[in-house]
Amino acid sequence: MEAPKSTERKYNHAVAVHSVSRTSRLSSGAENPPSFVGFRNLMILMLIVSNLRLMVENLRKYGVLVCIRCHDYRRQDIVYGGMLYLLVPLHLFVAWFIELAAAQQAKRAVARRKRAEEAHKTPDEYRAELRRAFQASWKLIALAHGVNATLNLVIASYVVYYRIHHPLIGTACELHAVIVWLKTCSYAFTNRDLRRAHLSLSSSNEMPELYKSCPYPKNITFNNLTYFWWAPTLVYQPVYPRTTHIRWIFVGKRLAEGVLLSVAIWIASAQYAAPLLQNSLDKMASLDVISILERLMKLSTISLFCWLAGFFAFFQSFLNALAEVMMFGDREFYSDWWNAPSIRKYWTSWNRPVMVFMRRHIYAPLVGRGWPPALAQVTVFVFSGLLHELLVGIPTHNVIWVAFAGMLGQIPLIVITDALQKIKGINGPVMGNIIFWVTFCLVGQPLAALLYFFAWQAKYGSVSKPLAWEKIDQSLAAL
Amino acid sequence: MEAPKSTERKYNHAVAVHSVSRTSRLSSGAENPPSFVGFRNLMILMLIVSNLRLMVENLRKYGVLVCIRCHDYRRQDIVYGGMLYLLVPLHLFVAWFIELAAAQQAKRAVARRKRAEEAHKTPDEYRAELRRAFQASWKLIALAHGVNATLNLVIASYVVYYRIHHPLIGTACELHAVIVWLKTCSYAFTNRDLRRAHLSLSSSNEMPELYKSCPYPKNITFNNLTYFWWAPTLVYQPVYPRTTHIRWIFVGKRLAEGVLLSVAIWIASAQYAAPLLQNSLDKMASLDVISILERLMKLSTISLFCWLAGFFAFFQSFLNALAEVMMFGDREFYSDWWNAPSIRKYWTSWNRPVMVFMRRHIYAPLVGRGWPPALAQVTVFVFSGLLHELLVGIPTHNVIWVAFAGMLGQIPLIVITDALQKIKGINGPVMGNIIFWVTFCLVGQPLAALLYFFAWQAKYGSVSKPLAWEKIDQSLAAL
Repeated sequence: MEAPKSTERKYNHAVAVHSVSRTSRLSSGAENPPSFVGFRNLMILMLIVSNLRLMVENLRKYGVLVCIRCHDYRRQDIVYGGMLYLLVPLHLFVAWFIELAAAQQAKRAVARRKRAEEAHKTPDEYRAELRRAFQASWKLIALAHGVNATLNLVIASYVVYYRIHHPLIGTACELHAVIVWLKTCSYAFTNRDLRRAHLSLSSSNEMPELYKSCPYPKNITFNNLTYFWWAPTLVYQPVYPRTTHIRWIFVGKRLAEGVLLSVAIWIASAQYAAPLLQNSLDKMASLDVISILERLMKLSTISLFCWLAGFFAFFQSFLNALAEVMMFGDREFYSDWWNAPSIRKYWTSWNRPVMVFMRRHIYAPLVGRGWPPALAQVTVFVFSGLLHELLVGIPTHNVIWVAFAGMLGQIPLIVITDALQKIKGINGPVMGNIIFWVTFCLVGQPLAALLYFFAWQAKYGSVSKPLAWEKIDQSLAAL
Repeated sequence: MEAPKSTERKYNHAVAVHSVSRTSRLSSGAENPPSFVGFRNLMILMLIVSNLRLMVENLRKYGVLVCIRCHDYRRQDIVYGGMLYLLVPLHLFVAWFIELAAAQQAKRAVARRKRAEEAHKTPDEYRAELRRAFQASWKLIALAHGVNATLNLVIASYVVYYRIHHPLIGTACELHAVIVWLKTCSYAFTNRDLRRAHLSLSSSNEMPELYKSCPYPKNITFNNLTYFWWAPTLVYQPVYPRTTHIRWIFVGKRLAEGVLLSVAIWIASAQYAAPLLQNSLDKMASLDVISILERLMKLSTISLFCWLAGFFAFFQSFLNALAEVMMFGDREFYSDWWNAPSIRKYWTSWNRPVMVFMRRHIYAPLVGRGWPPALAQVTVFVFSGLLHELLVGIPTHNVIWVAFAGMLGQIPLIVITDALQKIKGINGPVMGNIIFWVTFCLVGQPLAALLYFFAWQAKYGSVSKPLAWEKIDQSLAAL
C-alpha cells in the first residue's frame, strides 16, 4: 500500500479516493490500455503444468517404456549401413576426377587462346571457337557428372529400400546419400560456371571478390574438395568466409546441447509417442474420425516438442559445432522462422543450407533462362517434394507419397498466406503465423507421422521387440 | 524466394552465397537477436488444442454432466436467503438514522459556536469546549454504529451457518452482508471525519474540492445514502465523479458478457471440475501425494479458467454495467494485476474497491496514528483473512481456517517478491510475476477448492442429487 500524502493525514477517512472519472483498463477506449505480458508468463506455466501432469499420468499408466535393449536392428542393417557410409562419399571424389579432366581441357583451351592471339585472329572468331569447344566438352562432362550423381542416389536408395530394415538406420543412410548428392551437383554446376568465366574473354569475369584468392582452376584440388565435403553447406564455393581459430569450449558446449536434446527426443518418442501411435492403430483402422482427431491433438504436442528439439539440436548445436571445427564463418543456418508471417517466409527461413542450394542451382538459373518466377518456385517445391518422399518413403519401405503431397500442399498455403498480408483490417502477419503453426506443426507433422506409422505397422508389425509393446498392451487392457 | 540480382544473372551457379562471417540467430552474442513473438502464437494454439483434446476425452468418459435440475436446494434456503436479502440493507439505513441524530447535535454545536462568538469567548476556550462535546458524542455514536454493524454481520453469519444448507446461496447471502457491512463502516467513519472538519474552526477544513457541492451535514439524506447503497464502491463520499447520461447499449453489452461468462463458468464447473473433485476424494483420503498433485495440476486449469472468467464477469462486465446505470464516473475497479511483478502489487491491483477501503479506513488511519507501515499492512491482511474465512468457511459450514491461512501466507510471499526486485542479475519483475501465478492461481486456489470440497464431502456427502454423481461413478467404474 502506498503511504498517504501528508495533507490527507488529518481526515483520513474522508479522503476523496474517487476523485476523477476513469474507464476500466480492459474497456475499449481505455485511456491507458494495459500490456498483457503477464499472460505470456501464465501461458508458459500452463504448458509446463499441463504437460507435467500428462507425464505423471503416462508414467502411472505405462511405467517406464524407455529401453535401450528393446530396439530390434539386424546385423545386416549395420553391415549395409556401414558400407554405404564409406561408399557414398566416393561419388564426390569421382566428381573431382571429372573436374580434374575438365580443368586440363580448360588449360589447353587457354593455351589455344594464346596461340590465337599470336596468330592475330579476331576476338569474334576466337570467341566462337571457344564457345564450340566449351559446349562440346560440357556435354561430355555433364554426362559423366550425371551418371556419377545418379548412381549415388540409385544405389543408396536401392540398398536402403531392399536391404536395410530398420527405419532409423535407413533414414540416416538415405539422408547421407542425399546430402552428398546435393554437394556433388553443386560442385559440378559451380565449376562449370567458374570454367565458363575463366574461358571468357572479358577482363572482368564477374566473379565475387572472395574467390580472387583461389581462381579457377586452382580450386580443383583434393584439399579444397575435402573441405567442401565436411563444410556445413550444400553449396560449393572455391573460397568460404573463414574464422581464425577453433574455440574448443564452444564446440564442447554445442555437442553437449546436441547430445542432451537427442536423449530428450529419444525419451519423448519411446515414452510418449510410442504408446500414442500404438493405441491409435485401432482408430485408424476403423476410421473413427473424432478419435483420430483426439489422438492427433495429443500427438501434436509430442511431435512439436521433438521437432523443436530436433531443429535446435541439428541446426544450432550440431551445425555450429561442425562449423567451428571447420572454421566455417557463415553460421546463418536458419533465420527466425518461428515468427514467419507466411508459409513462403517459413520455407526460406528454417533450413537455409537447402534453401540456398535451391535458389542458387534451381530457382535463379531457371529465372535467368526466362522462366516465370512462379513456375520456378513450383519446380523447386516439386523437386523438394521428391527429396522428402525419398527421405521418408524409402527408409520406411512405403512410398505412399504423403511427404510429396505435403510439400506440394505448401503452394496453395503460400498463395493464401501471401494474400492475407495484403488484406486490410486484419493482422496479416499474425494470421499467417498462426496458419503456419497449425498446418505445419499441429496438423501436418503428426498426421504424416501417423500415416507412415500406420503404413509401416500394416506392412511389418512392430519395429521393437515384443517386450515394450506387450507392456503397453497389458496396461491398456488393464484400464 | 527473392529474385536474384541482375549482376548475378550470368554465372548463377557460382554466386558467393557464403560471403561474410555471421553467427547463428540463437547463438549468444548474435548480431541481431530474434524476436520470439511466433512462440507466443504457438503457445496460445497449444493451450487451445490441449484443452480441446481434454474436452473430447472428458465427453467420451462422462457424457454431458451439465444438468439444470440436478441442484438440490431446499425451500428453507430460499426463504432464509430472501429474508436476508431484504433485511441486510436495513442496517445501512439504521446507520443513516444514527448519523441524522449526530448531524442534529453538530448543528446545535455550531449554534453554540455562534453564541460563543457573541459572548466574546477566546478561540482557545471555545475549541476546548467543542472538542469535549465532539468526543463525548462520538463515543455514543460509535457505540451505536458498532452495535448496528456487528449485528448485521452476526445475524447474517448465524443464519447462513445454521439455516442455509446450499453453499452457493449461502455465499451470495454472506457476500451481500459483508459488502453492506463494509459500506456501513465506511459511512460511519467518513461522516465522523466530515463532522470533525465541519466543527473545526479553521476556514480551510482540508476537505476535497469535490465535496464542496454537498457540504456536511447536507449529505445526510435518504437519497445520498441510497446512491451509496447501489454505487459500485465500498467507500462513502458525499459526492462522486458522475457521468452525464446512461449509455443503455453499453449496459446491454456488459450484461450479455456477464451472462455468457457465467454460463461458461457453470459448464466448466459441472462438466470438468465436478468429476475431477469427485475422483480426487479417494486420493485425498489415502493421502496419495503424487495423485493429489496430479489432480491439483488438472484442477488448476479449470480453476484458473473460472477465476479469469469470473474476474472479468464481475469486475469488468457487472461493475461497469452497474456503474453505467448509476452514472458512477470512476470505473477503476482493477488495474493490470496480471502483469504484477510482486504479490504486493497484485493485492493492490486486482480488487480496487476492497483495496481502497482497506487503505482509507485501516492502513492510512493506523499509519496516521504513528503505527509502522509494515505493522499496518499485516493488520490489513489479518482483517482481510478474517473476511475471506467468513466468506468461504461460513457458507460451507466448515471454518477450517484455510482461507485465513492463505491470506496470512501472502505476507512472506510479499517479502520474498519485494526482495526479488532488488537482486541484480535476475529479471525480478518476471520472476515475481511467475511466483504470483504459481502460488495464487496454480497452487493456492485449486488446493483451497480441494480442501473445502473435501471438508464438505466429509461432513455432508454430495451437494447435488445422486443422479449426476451416479453417472460419474458409473463412468469411472466402467474404465
